[in-house]
Amino acid sequence: MTLTAIGTIRTAFARATGAPIQPYRAAGSVGSVEIFPPFVDGLADLAGFERIWLIYWFHRAAEAKLRVIPFLDSVERGIFATRAPARPNPIGMSSVRLLAVEGNVLRIAEVDILDGTPLLDIKPNVPLYDTYPMSRCGWLDGRVDGPVIADARFERPDL
Amino acid sequence: MTLTAIGTIRTAFARATGAPIQPYRAAGSVGSVEIFPPFVDGLADLAGFERIWLIYWFHRAAEAKLRVIPFLDSVERGIFATRAPARPNPIGMSSVRLLAVEGNVLRIAEVDILDGTPLLDIKPNVPLYDTYPMSRCGWLDGRVDGPVIADARFERPDL
Repeated sequence: MTLTAIGTIRTAFARATGAPIQPYRAAGSVGSVEIFPPFVDGLADLAGFERIWLIYWFHRAAEAKLRVIPFLDSVERGIFATRAPARPNPIGMSSVRLLAVEGNVLRIAEVDILDGTPLLDIKPNVPLYDTYPMSRCGWLDGRVDGPVIADARFERPDL
Repeated sequence: MTLTAIGTIRTAFARATGAPIQPYRAAGSVGSVEIFPPFVDGLADLAGFERIWLIYWFHRAAEAKLRVIPFLDSVERGIFATRAPARPNPIGMSSVRLLAVEGNVLRIAEVDILDGTPLLDIKPNVPLYDTYPMSRCGWLDGRVDGPVIADARFERPDL
């Protein structure tokens, strides 16, 4: 199972420290996505969607750990119960606001992604597919008011 | 960018034809996920979450196309404006209901995934991260009442 970058994500966040944690904390953050020429034809009909999922490679993530202390907690949690980047397969997903499609460039907002991130896939964010009522949310219940920006804990130490 | 399967998804759907389209159409479908031993420790704290994202490899998907006729439409759409499996990077994502964590096995429901699918990642489905109000949804607006099960159009022809 080998991946090919279909584009590059451009944002104001050169490194993890100071970047927003999750799009809902990134109201003012705009960015763009440059789609590589062989894939541009696949962008047809995308402009009608208000939000899109970007699926990307955490290119600056530290080596995977199975237990991590997430940004919003002070004790270790299983990596699969968190959205931390240091995962066995460092795949990230963010629902961002799609402002415009201009040729091979997507203008986006509410972006929590680091500059230079390789893009793997785009999917329309469809409420009927992606939104479900939920009454509990594990260790995150009641912890939504923690820090709003990231630090370097999940970043490769050589960067 | 190379991926490693962290487990295998087990469902009642041996092939695409007849499988539900998206979890919201899969109310009665239960399944399980077998996590491989090196990754089991990462499941800590997962049981508290009501829904989880499964990120997986569309192992039976046909060769990527940049324009496809999706299940819910009759005209071609750009692949990135659809959730069809025949994508440049055949990565799928589904929010499924987590019923129980039993050792290395997850019991799940509302499953739209084919049997034997390689699992790449698990993330908690967190409404605050993943749920946004939306007023429009591209070509899908008004088309949510189409077929509820898939056919073989995106499946490898040799299967």
